[in-house]
Amino acid sequence: MSLSRTSVWSIMENSTELTGARDGTQAPANRREKVVLRLRSAIITGDLAPGTVLKDAEIAARMGYSATPVREALMQLAAEGLVEIRPNRLKRVAPLEMAAIVELLEVQIELWRLGYLWGTPNIGARELAALQRIYGDHAEALAFGDLTAAIAAALAFHRVILMASGNRELVRVSLDRLALIQRFVRLCAPELVSADMLKKHKEILAALERGDSSSAIAVHATTGDALLETARSLRDKN
Amino acid sequence: MSLSRTSVWSIMENSTELTGARDGTQAPANRREKVVLRLRSAIITGDLAPGTVLKDAEIAARMGYSATPVREALMQLAAEGLVEIRPNRLKRVAPLEMAAIVELLEVQIELWRLGYLWGTPNIGARELAALQRIYGDHAEALAFGDLTAAIAAALAFHRVILMASGNRELVRVSLDRLALIQRFVRLCAPELVSADMLKKHKEILAALERGDSSSAIAVHATTGDALLETARSLRDKN
Repeated sequence: MSLSRTSVWSIMENSTELTGARDGTQAPANRREKVVLRLRSAIITGDLAPGTVLKDAEIAARMGYSATPVREALMQLAAEGLVEIRPNRLKRVAPLEMAAIVELLEVQIELWRLGYLWGTPNIGARELAALQRIYGDHAEALAFGDLTAAIAAALAFHRVILMASGNRELVRVSLDRLALIQRFVRLCAPELVSADMLKKHKEILAALERGDSSSAIAVHATTGDALLETARSLRDKN
Repeated sequence: MSLSRTSVWSIMENSTELTGARDGTQAPANRREKVVLRLRSAIITGDLAPGTVLKDAEIAARMGYSATPVREALMQLAAEGLVEIRPNRLKRVAPLEMAAIVELLEVQIELWRLGYLWGTPNIGARELAALQRIYGDHAEALAFGDLTAAIAAALAFHRVILMASGNRELVRVSLDRLALIQRFVRLCAPELVSADMLKKHKEILAALERGDSSSAIAVHATTGDALLETARSLRDKN
């Protein structure tokens, strides 16, 4: 399971390498990165609830670091949409606004559709092997009731196909709000990462194995639609 | 002309507010922002050529600032794709790779298509007035041979329609690589921001005025296609 987890995040880690300066006067990247990983995970699982006020000094003290890596980690999490930094300097875990989630999913679903359209024709033996392995992780996570790992595996499955598009910009914009989607599924729609989704992934895999892109695209579209429908109905309830 | 310029950038400025921390230990936002504006403009016009090595201390000395606002400005420009920060700490103006531009435009054109699809039905009197004003700026910029202002106006026109979609995520992903596209047009395809594009914008405006969304969408699509075709032919030449 740690393998698929790693692959989900590796692009984000890489983008950190590009945007997070390694200037000598800044926090060592490994400290900043440890804070990012710890807080990101706590926000996705809801251990740090939406709206929680985040204080640099408090987090730094708890992790035994200075304020600099914490401040830089919070800036990165703000860029991912997980943290809000208000003009009055108040930092907090981004609230879960269902209207914003709907807008996010409306766009992401179109990007995923493109990813499947451009990616599925390029699926080869290497990608099929990765998909089979991730499918196994997904099944195992569900068997153990590990929701977070199941969500990570479901998204990792997906990412293999996006990557196959060969379009780096598509991969970037399809993944830069991934943590927000993970949090939404984890906190609001865990039932979506169920045996039913696993069955759909098996169908997608079977379609790809026989080179049937259009079936793979069609089955995948139903999973995106289910996410969006859930978000819309939660939005409309409030 | 300064008006349309402002409107093109205002979303990026706002996103800076969200992601750029206002913590007391960081550089004052106005200094950082001045460095961002100055360098962004120099990169877009090519005054700072692709690949130019950027040295914090040198830029700071030239602008009369300390290194902190410069370092933070370079991190922001890295997030916009204009600056590359390598693992060896070398910072440079992002090179102009035509293959990357093609990938960027392939995705952006799909997003713009969505923006026109979702936005044109919501165009009202306020949006029409803004479009007419920006159209005037565009014509004036071309008359004066001010390419940079013409490109800014062409993109501002476009942004009014994206904003009308009401989808904040679509606006965000459609604008976060805008500066890279501006640079590409300015340095590689200035002929695209010509009297011909102005004529197309007039057609789009006329279609919107008579409530004919599908004509507006169709005309706009041809401008995106022209950008992508130019980028592809430049890529294939090398």
